[in-house]
Amino acid sequence: MQRLKSKFDAFRHRTNVVIYGTNTASGRLFDLILLGVILLSVVIVMLETVKGFDTKYHQQLIVLEWIITIFFTLEYILRIISIKKPIKYIFSFYGIIDLIATLPMYFSLFFVGTSVLTVVRALRLLRLFKILKHPQFSSQSTHLKEALIASRGKILIFIYFMLISSVIIGSVMYIVEGKEGGFTSIPISIYWTIVTLTTVGYGDISPITPLGQAIASVVMIMGYGIIAVPTGIVSAEFANSNRTKLRAERINPCTVCGTEGHEHNAKYCYHCGAEL
Amino acid sequence: MQRLKSKFDAFRHRTNVVIYGTNTASGRLFDLILLGVILLSVVIVMLETVKGFDTKYHQQLIVLEWIITIFFTLEYILRIISIKKPIKYIFSFYGIIDLIATLPMYFSLFFVGTSVLTVVRALRLLRLFKILKHPQFSSQSTHLKEALIASRGKILIFIYFMLISSVIIGSVMYIVEGKEGGFTSIPISIYWTIVTLTTVGYGDISPITPLGQAIASVVMIMGYGIIAVPTGIVSAEFANSNRTKLRAERINPCTVCGTEGHEHNAKYCYHCGAEL
Amino acid sequence: MQRLKSKFDAFRHRTNVVIYGTNTASGRLFDLILLGVILLSVVIVMLETVKGFDTKYHQQLIVLEWIITIFFTLEYILRIISIKKPIKYIFSFYGIIDLIATLPMYFSLFFVGTSVLTVVRALRLLRLFKILKHPQFSSQSTHLKEALIASRGKILIFIYFMLISSVIIGSVMYIVEGKEGGFTSIPISIYWTIVTLTTVGYGDISPITPLGQAIASVVMIMGYGIIAVPTGIVSAEFANSNRTKLRAERINPCTVCGTEGHEHNAKYCYHCGAEL
Amino acid sequence: MQRLKSKFDAFRHRTNVVIYGTNTASGRLFDLILLGVILLSVVIVMLETVKGFDTKYHQQLIVLEWIITIFFTLEYILRIISIKKPIKYIFSFYGIIDLIATLPMYFSLFFVGTSVLTVVRALRLLRLFKILKHPQFSSQSTHLKEALIASRGKILIFIYFMLISSVIIGSVMYIVEGKEGGFTSIPISIYWTIVTLTTVGYGDISPITPLGQAIASVVMIMGYGIIAVPTGIVSAEFANSNRTKLRAERINPCTVCGTEGHEHNAKYCYHCGAEL
Repeated sequence: MQRLKSKFDAFRHRTNVVIYGTNTASGRLFDLILLGVILLSVVIVMLETVKGFDTKYHQQLIVLEWIITIFFTLEYILRIISIKKPIKYIFSFYGIIDLIATLPMYFSLFFVGTSVLTVVRALRLLRLFKILKHPQFSSQSTHLKEALIASRGKILIFIYFMLISSVIIGSVMYIVEGKEGGFTSIPISIYWTIVTLTTVGYGDISPITPLGQAIASVVMIMGYGIIAVPTGIVSAEFANSNRTKLRAERINPCTVCGTEGHEHNAKYCYHCGAEL
Repeated sequence: MQRLKSKFDAFRHRTNVVIYGTNTASGRLFDLILLGVILLSVVIVMLETVKGFDTKYHQQLIVLEWIITIFFTLEYILRIISIKKPIKYIFSFYGIIDLIATLPMYFSLFFVGTSVLTVVRALRLLRLFKILKHPQFSSQSTHLKEALIASRGKILIFIYFMLISSVIIGSVMYIVEGKEGGFTSIPISIYWTIVTLTTVGYGDISPITPLGQAIASVVMIMGYGIIAVPTGIVSAEFANSNRTKLRAERINPCTVCGTEGHEHNAKYCYHCGAEL
Repeated sequence: MQRLKSKFDAFRHRTNVVIYGTNTASGRLFDLILLGVILLSVVIVMLETVKGFDTKYHQQLIVLEWIITIFFTLEYILRIISIKKPIKYIFSFYGIIDLIATLPMYFSLFFVGTSVLTVVRALRLLRLFKILKHPQFSSQSTHLKEALIASRGKILIFIYFMLISSVIIGSVMYIVEGKEGGFTSIPISIYWTIVTLTTVGYGDISPITPLGQAIASVVMIMGYGIIAVPTGIVSAEFANSNRTKLRAERINPCTVCGTEGHEHNAKYCYHCGAEL
Repeated sequence: MQRLKSKFDAFRHRTNVVIYGTNTASGRLFDLILLGVILLSVVIVMLETVKGFDTKYHQQLIVLEWIITIFFTLEYILRIISIKKPIKYIFSFYGIIDLIATLPMYFSLFFVGTSVLTVVRALRLLRLFKILKHPQFSSQSTHLKEALIASRGKILIFIYFMLISSVIIGSVMYIVEGKEGGFTSIPISIYWTIVTLTTVGYGDISPITPLGQAIASVVMIMGYGIIAVPTGIVSAEFANSNRTKLRAERINPCTVCGTEGHEHNAKYCYHCGAEL
C-alpha cells in the first residue's frame, strides 16, 4: 500500500513537471503540443460551421472532435491530480475554461444540438497569451502593458464620455429621424451613434432627413476628431516610458554609494555628495 | 408667523445641504439617488421605444414614468426653494434642463403624442459628468481638459479647413456623379464628402462613374492622411503637458549655487555638492 | 482730359484701398461683405440643386443668382481696373477663379443647362482661407503649416507606398474574386483596395469568396496598422516644433553680445564667452 | 574566335553598365525607360479588364501587350547574359518576378484564357520602390524604416492580440447572431470581427439581434480605442529617433571641461567659458 502511494506520488510529481513546468524540456514540449491541439480544436470547430465542408467530412470531423475532447479531459484530470491545491486550479480562470471546453461534447450525447457549444473552446486560445511571457517578448509586452495601465484613468473617462454622448445623440436622432431611416427605437439609435462615432459606418442604418444628415455630419466630425484623444494619451504615455527607459540607461553610478541615474553633466553624487 | 418663517428657513437650509451639498453624507447620498433615478428614467424612456417590450409592459412603464416625473418635479421645486438666488438657478444651463425634463409628461395629459418628448430626459445624463470632479478623476480629467484647450485653436482651424474642403469637393462630385450614384443635390454630396473624409463610409451613397471613383479615392487618402493632424496636435499637447508636469516636479533648486533640475530624491546638489 | 485722368486715378486708388486693403476700415468691411456674398452664392447654388426647394422658389433663386453674378462681375472689373499690373491678377490663381465664377450665368443665356456650372463658385470659398492670416490664427496656422511641410517628404513616400500597394493588391483581388463580388475590372479592384486600406469601407463592393475575405482581412489590418505611420510622423513633427518653440522662449540673452537661447544653467555666453 | 569572345565580353560589359548601372547617364536613362514601360504595361493590363474599353481597342491592346512582352523578354535575357553570376539573379526576388511577368503571354498562345495572368506584371511595380534609394528620399525613408523596425516587436504582439481576439469574438458572435444576420459560419464571423475592429465596416454582414448589436458596440469602441496602440508605438518611436538625431547633432563637447550639449553654432563652452 505504502509503495503504491509513493509510486503514485512519483507519478504525480512527474506529471506536474510535464504539465506545469516551463523550464524543463518535457514541460516546454507539452506546452507546444497543447497549443497545437488547442489550435487544431478551434480549426475543427470552425470547419464544422462551414456548410459545404461539414456535409462532406462530417464523419471525420466528429471523430477528431472526440479525440480532442478525450485529450482535453485527460489533461484536465491530470492537472487536478498532479497539483497540490486542486481546488485552487478548479476555480481559477483557466481551470473553469478548461472544464467548459470539454463539457459540450459529453452534453451532446444526451441533448441534441448542444454540440454547437463546442465553440467555447475558442476561449482556450487565451492560453496563447502565455507566449507573451516568453523572454523574447516579455520586455516589449511589459512596456505595452505599463503604457496602457498608465493611461487607464484617462481612457476610462474617455469611454465614459463617449457612452453618455452616445445616449444623448442617439435619443436626439430617434426623434429627428423617426422609423423610416431605420431608427426604430432609442437603443437602435444609440447603436447607430456608436457605429458612427467610431467611424465604422456599416450603413445598415443611415439618416435620410436633411436635419438627421446634418447631425450625423457633426457626429462624424466629432468621432473623427476625438479619436485623437485616446491616441494622444497612449502616444504621450509611450513617449514618456521611452524617455524613462532612456534615463535609466544613462545610469552613471556613484563610485562611493552606488546610486545610479546621474545626469551626464553631474559633478557630485546627488545621494552622498561624493565627487563623481 | 415668525416661528413658521424660521421653521421654513431651517427647512430650506437642510434641503440646501442635502440637494446642493457634496461634502456631507446626506448630500452625497442624494447625489447618488438622483443619478440612479436619472439613469432609471433614461432606461424607461429607451424601453418605451422598443415595440415588443412596450406592448407587453406599457402600463407599468407609464406608472414608473409618472413616479419619476413627480420625483423630478419635487426636486425642481425644492431646488428653487432652497437656493438663495432662485432666478440664477432657473436660467442656468442645468436649471433649464431640469425643467424641460419634467414638462413633457404634463404636456402629454393635454396633447396626444407629446410623451415622445420625454427623451429630452437624456440630457439630464449630463449631470453624470459631475463625477469627473470627484478627487479620484479630477487630476486626470483636468489634464485631459488642459490638453484639449491648448490644442483648441489648431483643432478649430482644422475643422474650418475640413468644412470648406467638404463644400468644394461635394460640389465637384455633384457635377461629376449626377443623380444616378445618389448625389441628388449638393447638400447630399457634401454629406457624402464628410462621410468619406471621416472614413465612416456608410455606402448609402457611393460613386459609380470612373471619374467619381477616382476623386473619391483621393478624398479617402486625404481623409486617411489628415486624421494625423488632430491626432498629432493632441498627442504633442499631451506629451507637452506630461513633460511640463515632470519638469515642475524636478525643478528643486540648490540653495547654494542655484542649479535646478535635481531628482526629487536628491540629497546633494549635483553641481556644487552642497546639501539640499 | 487731364482732369478726367487724375479723377480716374483717384478713383482707382480709392478702389484699390477698398478691394485690396486689409488694414483700413473700408478694406476690412469690403472683405467681410465679399465673404458674406460668396457664402450666400454658395448657399443659393446648393438650394437650387435641392429639388423640393427649387421648384417652390425657382424664380427668387434665379433673381438672386443674377444679383450675385452682377456683383461678382463688377468686383472682377474693379479688381482689374484698380490694380497696377492687371495681367498679373488676371492670370493669378484667384484671378482665374474669380473669372470662372461669373461666366456660367452668362453662358446660360445662350446654352441651356450650363447654369449647373455655377457650382464652380464654390471655389471662391478658398478665399475664406484668408482668415487664417488674421493675427488671431496666424501663429497657430503657421505652426500647423510648418509641421506639415516638415513631414511632407515622409508623407509623400507613404502615399507612394499606398498607391503601389493598392495597384498590386487590387490586381490580386481581381483574379481571386472575379466578377461576382463586384470586382469587375482592375481599376474597380484598386478603388475597392483604397476604400478598404483607408478603413472607409462603403460595402458597395465586398469580397464573397473565402480567399478574397482572407486577403481583405490582411488588407484591413494593414490599413488599420499603417494609419499609425502618417499619424506618427505628424505627431513627432508637432512635438518637435513645440519643443523648438519652448527652447526659443527660454531665451536668456547675453548682456554683452545679445545672443539668445542659452540653457537655463549656462554660466557663460556660448557666442562671446562673456559671463552671463 | 578569340576576337569574337572579347567582342562579346565588351558587349556584356556595356550592357551591364546600362542595365545595372545607376550612376551613369545611360544607366539612369535605362531605369527611367524601364519604369515607364512597367507603368505602361500595368495600365494596359488594367484597360484590358475594363469591358467597354477592351471591346473597342482589343486589337491595339494585344499588339501593345506583345511589344511589351518582347521588351521584357529581351531585358530578362540581357540581364542574365550581362551579369557575372546569372544563377544568383535568376533565383533572386526580382529575378523571379521578372520571369513570371513575361511568361503569361507565351502561355496564352497554347492555353486559352491564361492571358488574364498578365496581371502578375503589377508585381514589377515593386521596382518603383527603388526610387526610395534616390538621395533625395533615402534619408527620409531610412528614418521611416528605422522607426518601423524599432516598433516591430510591439506591432507583432498587437497583431497577435488582434487575431486571437477576433477568433474569440467571432465565435461568440456566431452563437449569438446565428444565420439570419449573415453570420453563417465562424470564419465569416471572424471576418466580420476584423471588418468591425479595424473600423472598416462594410455592412455586408451586420448584427440584427439586440445582444449582437450590444457586443458589436463593445467591439467597435475597442477597435476605436486600440487604434491608439499602434499609433502610439510608432509616434513614440518617431519622436525618439527625432530626439536622438537632434542630440547627436548637439553633443559637441568642450575640450577643456568636457561639458556636452552645446548648440551647433556655439563658439564658447557655456560651462567654463573656454573657446570650443
